[in-house]
Amino acid sequence: MMGFSLGSVLMSLGMRSEADQVSVDAITLFVGLLCTCIIIGHLLEKNKWINESITALTIGLCTGIVLLLTTEGRRSHILVFNEELFFIYVLPPIIFNAGFQVKKKQFFRNFMTITLFGVVGTLISFFIISLGSAQLFKMLNDVGFLEMGDYFALGAIFSATDSVCTLQVLNQDETPLLYSLVFGEGVVNDATSVVLFNTLQRFDLSHTTSGIATQFAGSLCSLFFTSTLLGVAVGLLSAYIIKKLYFGRHSTDREVALMILMAYLSYMMAELFSLSGILTVFFCGIVMSHYTWHNVTENSRVTTKHAFATMSFISEIFIFLYVGMDALDIEKWSAVSKSPGTSVGVSTILLGLIVLGRAAFVFPLSFISNLTRKSPDDKIGFKQQVTIWWAGLMRGAVSMALAYNKVFGLVTKPLIRFLLPLRKPLSSMVESELSSPKFLMLPLLQNGHDREVAMNGQNSTTLPLLQNGQDPEVAMNGQNGTTHPRSLCMLLTTPAHSVHYYWRKFDNAFMRPVFGGRGFVQRIPGSPTETVVS
Amino acid sequence: MMGFSLGSVLMSLGMRSEADQVSVDAITLFVGLLCTCIIIGHLLEKNKWINESITALTIGLCTGIVLLLTTEGRRSHILVFNEELFFIYVLPPIIFNAGFQVKKKQFFRNFMTITLFGVVGTLISFFIISLGSAQLFKMLNDVGFLEMGDYFALGAIFSATDSVCTLQVLNQDETPLLYSLVFGEGVVNDATSVVLFNTLQRFDLSHTTSGIATQFAGSLCSLFFTSTLLGVAVGLLSAYIIKKLYFGRHSTDREVALMILMAYLSYMMAELFSLSGILTVFFCGIVMSHYTWHNVTENSRVTTKHAFATMSFISEIFIFLYVGMDALDIEKWSAVSKSPGTSVGVSTILLGLIVLGRAAFVFPLSFISNLTRKSPDDKIGFKQQVTIWWAGLMRGAVSMALAYNKVFGLVTKPLIRFLLPLRKPLSSMVESELSSPKFLMLPLLQNGHDREVAMNGQNSTTLPLLQNGQDPEVAMNGQNGTTHPRSLCMLLTTPAHSVHYYWRKFDNAFMRPVFGGRGFVQRIPGSPTETVVS
Repeated sequence: MMGFSLGSVLMSLGMRSEADQVSVDAITLFVGLLCTCIIIGHLLEKNKWINESITALTIGLCTGIVLLLTTEGRRSHILVFNEELFFIYVLPPIIFNAGFQVKKKQFFRNFMTITLFGVVGTLISFFIISLGSAQLFKMLNDVGFLEMGDYFALGAIFSATDSVCTLQVLNQDETPLLYSLVFGEGVVNDATSVVLFNTLQRFDLSHTTSGIATQFAGSLCSLFFTSTLLGVAVGLLSAYIIKKLYFGRHSTDREVALMILMAYLSYMMAELFSLSGILTVFFCGIVMSHYTWHNVTENSRVTTKHAFATMSFISEIFIFLYVGMDALDIEKWSAVSKSPGTSVGVSTILLGLIVLGRAAFVFPLSFISNLTRKSPDDKIGFKQQVTIWWAGLMRGAVSMALAYNKVFGLVTKPLIRFLLPLRKPLSSMVESELSSPKFLMLPLLQNGHDREVAMNGQNSTTLPLLQNGQDPEVAMNGQNGTTHPRSLCMLLTTPAHSVHYYWRKFDNAFMRPVFGGRGFVQRIPGSPTETVVS
Repeated sequence: MMGFSLGSVLMSLGMRSEADQVSVDAITLFVGLLCTCIIIGHLLEKNKWINESITALTIGLCTGIVLLLTTEGRRSHILVFNEELFFIYVLPPIIFNAGFQVKKKQFFRNFMTITLFGVVGTLISFFIISLGSAQLFKMLNDVGFLEMGDYFALGAIFSATDSVCTLQVLNQDETPLLYSLVFGEGVVNDATSVVLFNTLQRFDLSHTTSGIATQFAGSLCSLFFTSTLLGVAVGLLSAYIIKKLYFGRHSTDREVALMILMAYLSYMMAELFSLSGILTVFFCGIVMSHYTWHNVTENSRVTTKHAFATMSFISEIFIFLYVGMDALDIEKWSAVSKSPGTSVGVSTILLGLIVLGRAAFVFPLSFISNLTRKSPDDKIGFKQQVTIWWAGLMRGAVSMALAYNKVFGLVTKPLIRFLLPLRKPLSSMVESELSSPKFLMLPLLQNGHDREVAMNGQNSTTLPLLQNGQDPEVAMNGQNGTTHPRSLCMLLTTPAHSVHYYWRKFDNAFMRPVFGGRGFVQRIPGSPTETVVS
């Protein structure tokens, strides 16, 4: 092999097989379509019914039709998008970025509810879908005989929420509680799914015993714990390395490269050890935004913040574009056309069971969760419960039939507007006043001012009270001034006895001195040159 | 297919074949090694004999040995790194970043010399290596009969310089003239290689006629022109789109995503049309840094500058790490061990011809180039010619035998220090004083001050005289204050009759008003909020 000499370009040109040419075609077309999606998505932004993912779906669908016509019905998509490609390259940046930009305080305040939804809720949903389909599929002809294990597999697949869809439809700034609950549930139930599937493979499920339940609970706990630990460990290691070596002294690029590579490493290690990569990389993102991000230069901060968001953005559009093309897959439709009655029957039953399974845990678990919440402001209202139930319906529906997902996605945004009108004027005001800097300056000076100061290259002198842990997301979204004063109030009303208070004490006493973090990294005071050197 | 539901993670876990598992192993190990390379490369930075690429080579070599021992001699590398992977994913970010960060003025001032080296020089080298090997290989037994076409292919492969190696060894700030000549030659001779190979395939070369020479010249010109045009067109299109739609109004991520995707699109389109992707993406990078980069928000500027450099950095380390592992490839060495005498003979002959072929054009062409340069400061000195000759020797050597490249790479840095001592104290002083901000402030305030001001979120009021087109590279390397005053002097001494003067007039009158660029994008004056909003 010629390795990487430029001369070998001619070898590759000469030896380029038909397969290579197809791959260049496909990538060129796909990249072109991605650009088109971004441009059209931007132009249509004002339209409240259409977002970037729906644009990408539509463009994918149109491209699929054109491809079908030009290839005379042979194929509708251009890249063979296998599971491996998705789980190794496309998913990690999306989940990592979600962890990196998540409002940590909001997330950890609802941690118990999220775990309840993600574990107990998924299990309830799993049993309703598995047992329900086992009963109802018997009424259909043509389905053929399925073993109990197949029904359990169906249940496991369709009981998991899709966190990628959630990111597209819910907005962290407009509806922070809903976002953290639904998205957090999506992250946590990935671990549940992994354990569910391992359990299904290992045990004979035709006669369920209490022994299996205990083992299941044990392996779930251990998986949850080890996955989280791995993510936290890799995140802390990156913080420690960058703090000790202080890469920024020489190169912003090295810091950024190391952060990207170590985040990806955490995901791949989790996959390697059969853990939940999604949980791992999510927690790695949280730790990196809390420690590592504060140890790097200003340029690295701006770069990582936007580079991670961009990678996530491209990956999301990629997925929706692909799903649009995939919807026209000949083989799938020919399978449907052979027995249309059965397909419609199966789809209807599954859809019904998903809706029912989700309702069966969202409302009871919300009720239980509300019992532990003292402040009435903090409780999950009925309208919010309806939104959680609805927004979490998006899932494998995409693979069952594109139409379902599209319907759910299209209706969720207006549903939120309709059910939660209290927040609507506020958030839309923020949106419309985005061009006026004054509106933004006010909340930013209250909470996020140290970020903004640091942005201008000056020394960040943080007030202890303001260290409430919301870091890269502050500068990310100018609109979050609406939520911060509330969390600040919370902190003032219940300052001494919250878990958060003890965590912060521990963090300041032991963690930050070792791993860095806001206010624990020495800078040359009053020197504006740091932004220039790097 | 399950599409992208999280539930399908369990499907993939369940159905994960042995092949998938190996791929996860391999990627995990490779990403881990990349992290190690960055950390060790950083720790060894003070050592003048070792740079990041040599670290990566060594680590790759060591990993290869360990793999050989653990797999009992079956394989030494973990990823099958085919041509496609290299040309589609690894090379484009490196060349694009080189175009994006290149000192445009320096590059275009030497444009004729670069073209002379890249076209005429490569042809001279090609004929010497082809005809020389045809004569000398006859003296060896065991080589077998090769047709004339095979010798021409050998010549085409080994006459091309390796621009990736050049980037690693030469420093744009320490030796700007050498860098632009050797790297520029590497970019241009990619086009020459493509045309050479197409010509070799199409014509019967056993009897060369003048008709073929004319056709060759014609197709070279057309390829050069179309490749450049495509890169410039895509770059200008990106500038126009971003200027017109003003993406920054809503999202930094969209701007960054669009820049990355359009740059990649230019490369893939060039490959699709059988043009020189390297030339195309290089010129796309130049146009993007001149126009597009000025049309985006401050955050996007910082992000793109460092994100592109980081992608290039990771790709380079990836290559060297892989080459280190590849050096132990069993099959290659078993071929060598079958006939060690012949292998040594062939290698020695090729190495001698490469050295000779390069000497045969560097010195004569430098002489011709010097005739057109009036100022004595501007001429290519003999010592610089020796360095160009030597630095350009790195190439397919990597694939022939790793050892050669390592030798060349190791010796080039000290050679530059030895041959060009005038610059040495200056550059090493810059390096050692990097920690002191005062030294950097002086030159930066002279030339790069508008960048620094813009960095601090304020309006950039540019002086026309300072608009000398060196954009993203200014903030990138704090050390370049040493070269700018010279180019400023140049501009002042020969202001009216240079090509550059007319280009600037044209640029300001026609190009910038349409495509944006420094000073041609309206900003809200005196508003420091732009860095916060985005």
